[in-house]
Amino acid sequence: MTTHETQMTQAEKMDENVETLLDEMTLREKAAQLAGTYVGTMDETRTVDDTKEMIREHGIGFATPFGYGASPHRASEEVVEIANNLQRIAREETRLGIPVLIPVDAIHGHAYVEDTTVFPHNMAVAAARDRTLTKQIGTVTATEVAATGSSLTYGPTCDVARDPRWGRAFETFGESPYLVGELAAAKARGIRGAPVDVAAMAKHFPAYGEPERGEDASPVDKSLSSLYRDFLPPFEKVLAEGVEGVMPSYNSINGEPSHGSQYWLTEVLRDDFGFEGYVASDWNGINMLHQNHRVATSPQDSIYQSFTAGVDVHSLGEVTHVDHVVSLVESGAVDEAAVNASVRRVLQLKSDLGLFEDPFVDPDESADTLETDAHRDVALEAARKSMTLVKNDDCLPFESDVDELLVTGPNADDLTNQVGGWSLKEAHELDGTTIKEGIESVVSADTAVRFERGSGIDEPADLDAAVTAAEDADAAVVVLGENWYLHEFGPQDVNGPTEAFPNRSELTLPDAQRRLLEAVVETGTPTALVLVSGRPLAVSWAAEHVDAIVQAYYPGADGGRAVAETLFGHNNPSGKLPISVPRSEGQHPVRHNYLPHPYPIGEDEHLPSYDPLWAFGHGLSYTDFEYRGLSVSAESLAEDESITATVTLANTGERAGDEVVQLFGGREHASVVTPVEELIDFQRVSLDPGQETTVTFEIAAETFDVVRPDGSSRFESGQLSLRCESLDASITAVADD
Amino acid sequence: MTTHETQMTQAEKMDENVETLLDEMTLREKAAQLAGTYVGTMDETRTVDDTKEMIREHGIGFATPFGYGASPHRASEEVVEIANNLQRIAREETRLGIPVLIPVDAIHGHAYVEDTTVFPHNMAVAAARDRTLTKQIGTVTATEVAATGSSLTYGPTCDVARDPRWGRAFETFGESPYLVGELAAAKARGIRGAPVDVAAMAKHFPAYGEPERGEDASPVDKSLSSLYRDFLPPFEKVLAEGVEGVMPSYNSINGEPSHGSQYWLTEVLRDDFGFEGYVASDWNGINMLHQNHRVATSPQDSIYQSFTAGVDVHSLGEVTHVDHVVSLVESGAVDEAAVNASVRRVLQLKSDLGLFEDPFVDPDESADTLETDAHRDVALEAARKSMTLVKNDDCLPFESDVDELLVTGPNADDLTNQVGGWSLKEAHELDGTTIKEGIESVVSADTAVRFERGSGIDEPADLDAAVTAAEDADAAVVVLGENWYLHEFGPQDVNGPTEAFPNRSELTLPDAQRRLLEAVVETGTPTALVLVSGRPLAVSWAAEHVDAIVQAYYPGADGGRAVAETLFGHNNPSGKLPISVPRSEGQHPVRHNYLPHPYPIGEDEHLPSYDPLWAFGHGLSYTDFEYRGLSVSAESLAEDESITATVTLANTGERAGDEVVQLFGGREHASVVTPVEELIDFQRVSLDPGQETTVTFEIAAETFDVVRPDGSSRFESGQLSLRCESLDASITAVADD
Repeated sequence: MTTHETQMTQAEKMDENVETLLDEMTLREKAAQLAGTYVGTMDETRTVDDTKEMIREHGIGFATPFGYGASPHRASEEVVEIANNLQRIAREETRLGIPVLIPVDAIHGHAYVEDTTVFPHNMAVAAARDRTLTKQIGTVTATEVAATGSSLTYGPTCDVARDPRWGRAFETFGESPYLVGELAAAKARGIRGAPVDVAAMAKHFPAYGEPERGEDASPVDKSLSSLYRDFLPPFEKVLAEGVEGVMPSYNSINGEPSHGSQYWLTEVLRDDFGFEGYVASDWNGINMLHQNHRVATSPQDSIYQSFTAGVDVHSLGEVTHVDHVVSLVESGAVDEAAVNASVRRVLQLKSDLGLFEDPFVDPDESADTLETDAHRDVALEAARKSMTLVKNDDCLPFESDVDELLVTGPNADDLTNQVGGWSLKEAHELDGTTIKEGIESVVSADTAVRFERGSGIDEPADLDAAVTAAEDADAAVVVLGENWYLHEFGPQDVNGPTEAFPNRSELTLPDAQRRLLEAVVETGTPTALVLVSGRPLAVSWAAEHVDAIVQAYYPGADGGRAVAETLFGHNNPSGKLPISVPRSEGQHPVRHNYLPHPYPIGEDEHLPSYDPLWAFGHGLSYTDFEYRGLSVSAESLAEDESITATVTLANTGERAGDEVVQLFGGREHASVVTPVEELIDFQRVSLDPGQETTVTFEIAAETFDVVRPDGSSRFESGQLSLRCESLDASITAVADD
Repeated sequence: MTTHETQMTQAEKMDENVETLLDEMTLREKAAQLAGTYVGTMDETRTVDDTKEMIREHGIGFATPFGYGASPHRASEEVVEIANNLQRIAREETRLGIPVLIPVDAIHGHAYVEDTTVFPHNMAVAAARDRTLTKQIGTVTATEVAATGSSLTYGPTCDVARDPRWGRAFETFGESPYLVGELAAAKARGIRGAPVDVAAMAKHFPAYGEPERGEDASPVDKSLSSLYRDFLPPFEKVLAEGVEGVMPSYNSINGEPSHGSQYWLTEVLRDDFGFEGYVASDWNGINMLHQNHRVATSPQDSIYQSFTAGVDVHSLGEVTHVDHVVSLVESGAVDEAAVNASVRRVLQLKSDLGLFEDPFVDPDESADTLETDAHRDVALEAARKSMTLVKNDDCLPFESDVDELLVTGPNADDLTNQVGGWSLKEAHELDGTTIKEGIESVVSADTAVRFERGSGIDEPADLDAAVTAAEDADAAVVVLGENWYLHEFGPQDVNGPTEAFPNRSELTLPDAQRRLLEAVVETGTPTALVLVSGRPLAVSWAAEHVDAIVQAYYPGADGGRAVAETLFGHNNPSGKLPISVPRSEGQHPVRHNYLPHPYPIGEDEHLPSYDPLWAFGHGLSYTDFEYRGLSVSAESLAEDESITATVTLANTGERAGDEVVQLFGGREHASVVTPVEELIDFQRVSLDPGQETTVTFEIAAETFDVVRPDGSSRFESGQLSLRCESLDASITAVADD
């Protein structure tokens, strides 16, 4: 017998400890491990003392006292103290000393706590198309989350934004299942590979990003083909990274709310995908079964349905959940063995995270860890790489020594709008650089920078002053877009009435912003438009009349610097659109991977099926790139094999620059209708002027798997097509018989 | 033994004849019965002589020489002669003398032939909510179709218009599966119950009315729940009427084009629904399998797939189809028994239609039958009943003796736009009354009616003259809307470039029309807006600023008279919207039967899930109706039973009028998410002033069946809710265990 076989591994010991602990627990103690609570005001208000009591008296297993929107506790020193206090109670004042698990909503950095690094939102990160950078973002986020005593972040987001109107589009990596999967997986690797113990959670399973009407949490009423082809692939990639948790989506699918769906949470997630981690409700997602979806008739019925479907933890369950679980077991409705299985997952996770060994944080170490220069550099790099130049008629970059520059627009000097939702929103809580400040820091000392707001997000403001200034200026930067919002563009106390912009039915600029832009352009002063927005705005007028347009997304706390560097040429833009930009709200949906279809009275009688204002993958540079010689390593591709595609990229312009080389693929024929093409790979390349390189893509046959009507996938024989910019190549797929 | 048992019935004899005939046929003769041709210009041009040759030389089974869009033959005498000639060749110059079957596109009357009765389009008929009237329309249509020697009409349309942008929305009975089903079934009864032999064809199976992007024939990518709940019920109702044919939809569903879907055409249609008639391709739908959907690799592969899926007849197959079918059988790919089964259906249909006995038409009888006063009265009644008064601020009805009246707008005096697509479109081919003409006929002799076009559909025209006239007028009627189009708003030779209005992404009025309306309203002259349009237009400005608005749909050839009678009070409007009217293109989809869902940060943070400009079912009257005392016959409803709901309706105003009483129902809870409510019944009632009546609805338990995720339906226990106007009632459903 080898050492390996005779001695217990550390992991086995922990497993054994979990079993020992489980054996000691009462039913009530078990149920408590499946319930969480929060601090802050949602439907009801909970204080830290309430949480302490729930841990002390009931042994509640999860608590979110900070690090999400509704908590009043934001200062980093304060939250560290709260975390340590809660753990102390859990460890020392409960019968079994089981540590509490503290999840946070670190969507783009640990942004609901002060003195943290606030990254660009995922839509921007997706524009950057950089797996390594995305992984770093995950690592920095996890590091800062751990530094405040939390050990789980609700992410990465695996949602595919197939409706640009949706208020959560900016949280996603865009419209491409491949892109979302690659970057969500990179982020998961970053979180899990961090030098701290923080768990990741894939969300929102299985499909959230194409809600009816674009309304948050409304049904995703799609075919099984689409669910398996367009929504699930990112989850499969992220689960393959070993993420610890999965969060169901709020909405219903094919009549079944995800939180109550045995099909999705057990048959697919556990049986088919082999997921062994734990499933936690999205906040109040369980009660929504009876409150909103109306598939349950009472809170207990909702708990019964979600638990038997496969939800282990009720994130907001509190003591009520404990009572119901106990009662369900005592009445025989739920088998205690099922409860044990859920509790085992929770205990194992806490054990894996090292919480049984040491759940505490050292406040001094915490202060040294948060928002370091190195961390902020990652955020700044992400912002720089995300900048997407969608139009440039010999306008940008501006000269740094321009005499007089107008900076105008509601988002030119607004750090709250610049960071976007899922962040602290009071200016004094934020630490960063607005676009105006960024510009001031990059222009020459002789340049006069004049700022006029010119417009609010949805209301007029000092338009005349802005126009007068534009007339005097040598160049103008107009910064428009959206403000800070989450879910369905709330809350109203920040954003005003629900019908105000932004709202789900408008993707065009509101009148006040449109007037500002038109008036500035009308002066004839060279004008660049910068869009700070979570969604792709339908700026058809601007596309025609404005000299240059930069899509800046929500670029994060230091995004203002990245925007300024881009406008003045210190950063050569290299972002590529992660989502198609529609021409109007009525042109919807507009997605690069649409399905081909007939044209009964002729194709020329239709407006094109895909004719966005700017296409998915579009993005200009200040230098010129030339693509040459797309070739493949073999003429045919057999099942389970792979093929290599190469293309030569040359920087034929006069500046150094990055280019994201994007490979699209499709099938000429298949047993079912397949997308005309899809993004299948990408690589970011840096080239000096005159430099060229060969970019190589390794393409696995399964890339071309066909999703069948029952959701299964298979490789099929037939012609495959590759496209890289305007270059095409063809491969013959040869399936096993 | 009784007589019945010893003697063959006529039907049995015919069946035997069919079998005898089938036995005599060569494989090639059989294959020819499964192919059709046309006369006119589509991708290629076919003449009557071509068709004659195809019948004579190849025994082709179906021909459409007239009665659809691309045919040059429109005069009724001419088409009768063509029909008789073709039948003569089929009967006398082919080996077996099998008559040809001539299908036509009689979408709203036999409107592609001159001197026929052109009805309002289905969207208007749906507003009228009158089953008896709809049945009459079916009967008149069948009568006129038969009078020209055709014996099959491609209808009724069973499509549910769930995307108002779709260019075929006006061909449907609207957004409610119940309403569509009831009226499509009524029309089928009318066709089948006519004193002539004309077959009906349910189309477009199984789902067509919610194409992606609103683009015609793009995928209907919906959940199985939605397919079975929202799209299939109308087909089930129409199939229950015994319609002879089913036409698949052009689009794909869950990755499978309907024309190649064994699941839909065989498993569901034949095995589950028990359909025994024949399935004919929608025009070129078979070739689209390889040309567009790319699920087949060649014409022969498309034929193989569609045939094995369950398509019997290739409507445009011609001799190529015959060759391919023969070759498929000879190669062993297709069993001749399967061909026999399809041919048997075709021969049986021709036999049932009496074509073997006498396929000829008497030209004199034909002339006496077409467009009789009685037929036109049915069309006029339908137009009258369809008029939907959506807004009226003490404006309408106008007094007949108004001194000076302005009639303006691109649809005020345009018979082509008034009849809408799927009709002849040259003014000289149409016989009817425009709105201007109708107004002239109803106003007093002293009234000066001035007409100024004021605007084209999408281009300015004489705006100033219209405004000047409006200033002088005592009242103005502005008639705006859409023009003649079909499918994706084509063809361009009628409607101009594809991007011109109407197009799929715009539901707002184009600038030219909007300016006309605004300018007329600006004069302060009392103004009524009449919308002649196939789709619900997002006229938010008009809803706020115009005194009165009448939705006239495409009201048919005599619709101008119905509009005029409505404006001047000779017809008390009683139409109810068959589709919700959105506030903008971005507010989409907006449907009364939406599914409930959660509101993660609170319901008050959302714009309402259903907040149209005007709701489904909305429609005003010139009199007042009061609803009282909605009650049910029992407190509970058991499976397979029914219950009675009654409500009292009183005409409390000063005019006689019709009211469509609409009953909506829903479930408080179910095993899956169910619509918040749906239209479940309606009745049209006529009441004199002061009169009241009790309206009784018999509601079968199955009305409340719940559609499960697998598409099956079942009755479930739980609370049911009924709503009639603002009255509510509740019932307890009790399912068998």
